[in-house]
Amino acid sequence: MTGEIFIGSYVLERLRQLGLKSIFGVPGGNTFHVVLRVTEFDHYADYELALLDLIPEAGLEWKGNPNELNASYAADGYARVSNGVGALVTTYGPGELSALCGIAGAYCEYVPVLHIVGYPSLEIMKGHKIVHHSLGHGTFTEFHDMSKKICCATTVLMDAETAASEIDRVLNEMLYQSQPGYIGIPTDICYTNISSSSLQTPLKMELPGNDGGEEAKAVAVIRELIERSSKPIIIVDGGATRNQVLSEVETLCQVTKFPYFANPWGKGAVSEASDRFGGVYTGLGTKPDVKEAVESSDCVLWIGKLSSDFNTAEFTEDVKLDRVIEFQRFWISIDGRKVDLNMKSVLQKLNEHFQSIPLKMEQAWNLMPCSPYPKLESAVPNGKMKQAWLWPRFAGFLQPNDILVIETGTSQIGINDTRFPEGLRAFTQTIFGSIGFAAGSSVGAFLAGKERGGASRNILVTGEGSLQLTIQAFSDLLRHDLKPILFILNNGGYTIERLIHGLREQYNHVPMWKYGELLDAFGIGYKTKAYQVRTCKEFDDVLREKTLTEALCAQVVEIFLDELDAPEALISIGKMIDQKNTKK
Amino acid sequence: MTGEIFIGSYVLERLRQLGLKSIFGVPGGNTFHVVLRVTEFDHYADYELALLDLIPEAGLEWKGNPNELNASYAADGYARVSNGVGALVTTYGPGELSALCGIAGAYCEYVPVLHIVGYPSLEIMKGHKIVHHSLGHGTFTEFHDMSKKICCATTVLMDAETAASEIDRVLNEMLYQSQPGYIGIPTDICYTNISSSSLQTPLKMELPGNDGGEEAKAVAVIRELIERSSKPIIIVDGGATRNQVLSEVETLCQVTKFPYFANPWGKGAVSEASDRFGGVYTGLGTKPDVKEAVESSDCVLWIGKLSSDFNTAEFTEDVKLDRVIEFQRFWISIDGRKVDLNMKSVLQKLNEHFQSIPLKMEQAWNLMPCSPYPKLESAVPNGKMKQAWLWPRFAGFLQPNDILVIETGTSQIGINDTRFPEGLRAFTQTIFGSIGFAAGSSVGAFLAGKERGGASRNILVTGEGSLQLTIQAFSDLLRHDLKPILFILNNGGYTIERLIHGLREQYNHVPMWKYGELLDAFGIGYKTKAYQVRTCKEFDDVLREKTLTEALCAQVVEIFLDELDAPEALISIGKMIDQKNTKK
Repeated sequence: MTGEIFIGSYVLERLRQLGLKSIFGVPGGNTFHVVLRVTEFDHYADYELALLDLIPEAGLEWKGNPNELNASYAADGYARVSNGVGALVTTYGPGELSALCGIAGAYCEYVPVLHIVGYPSLEIMKGHKIVHHSLGHGTFTEFHDMSKKICCATTVLMDAETAASEIDRVLNEMLYQSQPGYIGIPTDICYTNISSSSLQTPLKMELPGNDGGEEAKAVAVIRELIERSSKPIIIVDGGATRNQVLSEVETLCQVTKFPYFANPWGKGAVSEASDRFGGVYTGLGTKPDVKEAVESSDCVLWIGKLSSDFNTAEFTEDVKLDRVIEFQRFWISIDGRKVDLNMKSVLQKLNEHFQSIPLKMEQAWNLMPCSPYPKLESAVPNGKMKQAWLWPRFAGFLQPNDILVIETGTSQIGINDTRFPEGLRAFTQTIFGSIGFAAGSSVGAFLAGKERGGASRNILVTGEGSLQLTIQAFSDLLRHDLKPILFILNNGGYTIERLIHGLREQYNHVPMWKYGELLDAFGIGYKTKAYQVRTCKEFDDVLREKTLTEALCAQVVEIFLDELDAPEALISIGKMIDQKNTKK
Repeated sequence: MTGEIFIGSYVLERLRQLGLKSIFGVPGGNTFHVVLRVTEFDHYADYELALLDLIPEAGLEWKGNPNELNASYAADGYARVSNGVGALVTTYGPGELSALCGIAGAYCEYVPVLHIVGYPSLEIMKGHKIVHHSLGHGTFTEFHDMSKKICCATTVLMDAETAASEIDRVLNEMLYQSQPGYIGIPTDICYTNISSSSLQTPLKMELPGNDGGEEAKAVAVIRELIERSSKPIIIVDGGATRNQVLSEVETLCQVTKFPYFANPWGKGAVSEASDRFGGVYTGLGTKPDVKEAVESSDCVLWIGKLSSDFNTAEFTEDVKLDRVIEFQRFWISIDGRKVDLNMKSVLQKLNEHFQSIPLKMEQAWNLMPCSPYPKLESAVPNGKMKQAWLWPRFAGFLQPNDILVIETGTSQIGINDTRFPEGLRAFTQTIFGSIGFAAGSSVGAFLAGKERGGASRNILVTGEGSLQLTIQAFSDLLRHDLKPILFILNNGGYTIERLIHGLREQYNHVPMWKYGELLDAFGIGYKTKAYQVRTCKEFDDVLREKTLTEALCAQVVEIFLDELDAPEALISIGKMIDQKNTKK
């Protein structure tokens, strides 16, 4: 299939090769430009519209969003659930700047998202014209410079000669680092023809293999450390998901028969149905018996570990470094010594090794030493909704194949008390922790699930304060017929701040909105349903409603909680630290 | 009043000195940090909350917004209507990045907005900790670097010793350039005490005076050029508003008795009640007789001129440079030669000169040679709403003291056919042209109007495609009881793109929302009213409704227009260019 191809189409074809089907973004609205366009002043065509024309021809679907922040989150969620890449198109200036928060989040969570920006024509830029969307100086490099800080590779295509190689360079780096890339396309460049021959050279979707000798040595050392230990365990963190080693991890858990755990960022990465799953480890935020089991281990295989404040309950993990074998994208570390080996290959070799020569371990340790989740009271308690009851009960509602997006903050902590069924897909933005991410990214996540086929339910859990930042997601969830189930925790403010800090402060007041009415008003002609829940009984009843359990339409469940109610982990953290302090 | 003051309070006191009353932003939501805060791990306090505590003590009002993009637009609108500065507080990382589009807009439209960012503690940053909201590398300079591209001065307060001088440096530069500044405040620095003595040195709110000799020379030359001319005129652009020379301009128009005109960016800057007002000049987008009057002038005093695409109908102005005397913030230019003189002082000297020694001009030219606005048909036409009728008719609805915010795009062009009453305040974002700006900035604009006192009506005119980006503004407009009148032009998509470009393209489909229901659902317990208008008759009737004319509650007027309907200027531009092309 060699021949000629528009430069704009070249980018889109590369995305199609990577398995992308839907592309997000916002059209760059404009006036005179398009009037002039019809009269063949083509170089005045709006910065971005030219590219959008090429999307259907490229076999991709345009999934426009109400604003760019939502678009950037949607592209992130799409990449996470499709296990591939995400992409969005914005216009130069206001459009791209409004997407930066979402791109930065993808950058630090290792989500490969391509940010395509429609630039003014070469004539405008080389003529230093004062055009709309620019800073008014006749210069056009500022916004590109800003994106360089939060992308692993960027380019603005100023020359047709190098366009193809530049596009491939950015995309290959995006795949290698699993982080966002940025490609600026001037309107006239977009429709310039180039040779399509390089499209036959596939992009590099796999990391290069490891040095065989180094790898064999590492495998031997790891095996020795394991066999010398009496309480080996596996901890799976979000890095395992983000680096696509979940199948290797699953095999590892099976062949070793070790107890295994998750960190908050890794919650949902591994099966929680197995009796060898020990629960979520997050320092002082961990259930006492789970904490004991993890911290007493003398050999920890820690996969995709992330030592961030939210993931470790403010750096309160307590696992001896000399007992940890850490696996990361580009290196593994044994007893604190780093070796440049990518973990995917090392894990595969480990599994093969254990399969051919089974481990000699006493079996005792294979009995799970802890109970991963809080016991759920058999009877529904009377009185107001409580998070201590909400999260364990929520597990009873979840089904295999559900797609579950969890907002940062209270929900992210509470969900660690919810057992996930086999096959459920879940994610939360643990490192960047941007409020509003969950609602925005759910649009892309649910669309990716729909593209994969299969009857998955689309579930979002968020606080009302966070939801307000990206409420426009309601519109996309309706028009793409995703029949979302939206759980909104409403405590009339930013709970946690209220817990201690400025209970009566004006800034903790989050305006009250009518969420059920909003869901309905964000579209015309869609079936929606809304529930309000104030007691455990009401919540329990709603979770049994057929319309909800079968996700028959778009639905909001608004859960009213006491201002100061919080998940158990948060409360216990507070207590434990108080004890520490009083000991001083 | 010397003594000690918190560094956080120092910044706020400086803002109070500048006349600021309301401060916008979004609290940085967070979890563990605040739990730990109570237990005196104060360095873990959330990045921004500490600062928010100080706002009431500083005598300022916190006007929190649903998201940061809206907050940044609100601060811009507040500065424009208060004739002072605006300010917003966001949290490090996601919060500040989500505000960058609004800050960039303020930068290129010369609006002094202070962006205060709550940073992690010095301990966290110096310890290179992997904390939420960061990029996960233990580095903390990236976001500051990004803001440097769109602010005239920035600082992150890493040292209490230099904090006061750094704060004053940024604020003085912000005032000098009339562009945004950026101050990052680490949580622990926020509560560090410093001397308050430098607060007694006022910030520099005025530009330094001009060189007396140079100025006198310039005044003499200008007078000579004027007296040699036979058709002198004044054109007032947005730079006159943004540089606070409107009173000087008003005097100039009175003492010279010259016909005067406005550019689109300057629409509303000068009285349109006077019979010496000649209308809006924007190249090919100008009414023929107005165009003739301007382009036949042999001496143009052009104040705050901006030669951007949107302001000049794509650079189609046709005024001979050698007839132009241009006045700008830091320079004036005569016959193309620039002199470093700030215009405010020059205009004052010119006025004094003309007042002491009246100009010798034949009076003939003082008769207005053109009619500024299209004639309004006396009878209301039958049939569908048309923009050609809408905009002139809209003038009949406007009242003195109205505050009118106009969205970019169709509304920005159409409004040039609407005569403004004396005293009305209006603005639109002409250079940056970011869709969604109008709704977001209206919150700040209307609040500033309310603070000034006086019974002003708060009016927003926007397209529905633009409104969707910042629809959260509805919530703020309700909770601050601003009783807005919201005119929404609904053509079911981005009209202008549709005009020519991809009429049936999917990307031009803007989802249909229920705007009346939305306005009501974005709050609880507020009185709202909604109208839908499809014909000229219906529009005419609605504009006579008492509830609307007296702005008795928050109201939406949704105006349905044909997909391809557009203001006359747009249509005529198309025609004139077609003629040009056919001549070729």
